[in-house]
Amino acid sequence: MTANSTDSPSDSSGEVWQPSDAALADLLGALAYGELSAFDRLAEDARTAPTLVTRAALAKMAGAEIGHYRLLEEHLRTLGVAAETAMAPFVTALDGYHRSTAPHDWLESLVKVYLGDGLAADFYSAVAGWLPEPTGSLVRKVLADTGHGAFAEREVAAAIEQNRQVRDRLALWGRRLLGEAITQAQYVVADRDELAELFVRGFGDMSGIAVLFKKLQLQHNRRMGALGLA
Amino acid sequence: MTANSTDSPSDSSGEVWQPSDAALADLLGALAYGELSAFDRLAEDARTAPTLVTRAALAKMAGAEIGHYRLLEEHLRTLGVAAETAMAPFVTALDGYHRSTAPHDWLESLVKVYLGDGLAADFYSAVAGWLPEPTGSLVRKVLADTGHGAFAEREVAAAIEQNRQVRDRLALWGRRLLGEAITQAQYVVADRDELAELFVRGFGDMSGIAVLFKKLQLQHNRRMGALGLA
Repeated sequence: MTANSTDSPSDSSGEVWQPSDAALADLLGALAYGELSAFDRLAEDARTAPTLVTRAALAKMAGAEIGHYRLLEEHLRTLGVAAETAMAPFVTALDGYHRSTAPHDWLESLVKVYLGDGLAADFYSAVAGWLPEPTGSLVRKVLADTGHGAFAEREVAAAIEQNRQVRDRLALWGRRLLGEAITQAQYVVADRDELAELFVRGFGDMSGIAVLFKKLQLQHNRRMGALGLA
Repeated sequence: MTANSTDSPSDSSGEVWQPSDAALADLLGALAYGELSAFDRLAEDARTAPTLVTRAALAKMAGAEIGHYRLLEEHLRTLGVAAETAMAPFVTALDGYHRSTAPHDWLESLVKVYLGDGLAADFYSAVAGWLPEPTGSLVRKVLADTGHGAFAEREVAAAIEQNRQVRDRLALWGRRLLGEAITQAQYVVADRDELAELFVRGFGDMSGIAVLFKKLQLQHNRRMGALGLA
């Protein structure tokens, strides 16, 4: 890659590459639908939470996701795109992911939220590294922890402490989640040319994307460890 | 009532009356659980909303309710009371109300949110008139419209325009909601001495409460009219 005064990637001619508005709208649309889906999941989990304290905690996390959704909606508007238009192409894949990984109980829910949010945050923060401003800053802001992390670690640790069977089941569950997420992500990219080009250009080339995948997998395993499921 | 330099009610001895912290915690606990329940309802409605636009609109309203919940939780903390402790006495009555008025479809949901929020706002703003500061201001802030109003009016108007049967069904539904709300409110007050005393003292006497009930009924009817259901 040719050196240039900014951190923006450049192509072999030395020209600074800028992602198209359509590709940015795709990226933000996928992120926005991710927030809306996360809201749904958390709100549903809140309803089945075992105590009033956990119910309120999950409802507040759901509220934080919607705060992020609002920021994305607002930013999409400045690009001249309605949030619903930007989100529409990603509904099938994300709903497919959630359908194929419907949690059977409260603990599977917690593990899914924890690992899924972590994976999304890792992926989008890698992307934010080469996004133009103000989009890069917005993405970083939207990925701010909404409090799931510490909460999930506490609850899962308490549940598996005395029960090896639960631990093994959740460990299997955590590994399955990564597989399903990668499957759906591949469908999305195969279907959206602008987005595929964005990633290839942004990460340099296909080997840049391979490096990213390896990194996402390592971080997923590290999070499994933090839950006591390694 | 003896005249005094503030708007605070005074008893026949001319002494200015101040609600106890326990009564305030009850009042705020009921309001907080109302917000948490409203969040649940809106989040559930969001899931069944007919379009991505309405789904996002309802999710944002649910997020606003949680914003209000956070303010109440914070204020309760300054009174030395955990939100879950303050809410606990009101769970049965509010859940009972929601169970006995479970909407059968999207339109019944909308009408319920619109009328229920209106009723709660009327009631709490009457109460805020004689609450000490900063509790009075907090209650007024928490009652700020979260955007349901215009949204529900638009959706219901569109649905009943061409369908008299739907209109009649929703009109009946709207009247039933008021009856159920009053029934549950009576259970709550009968069960909570501090709260009952707060209302009697705050509104002056039993006839003050009768005036309030009349006013709530009139405003409910006015809102039925705004929905086209009078």
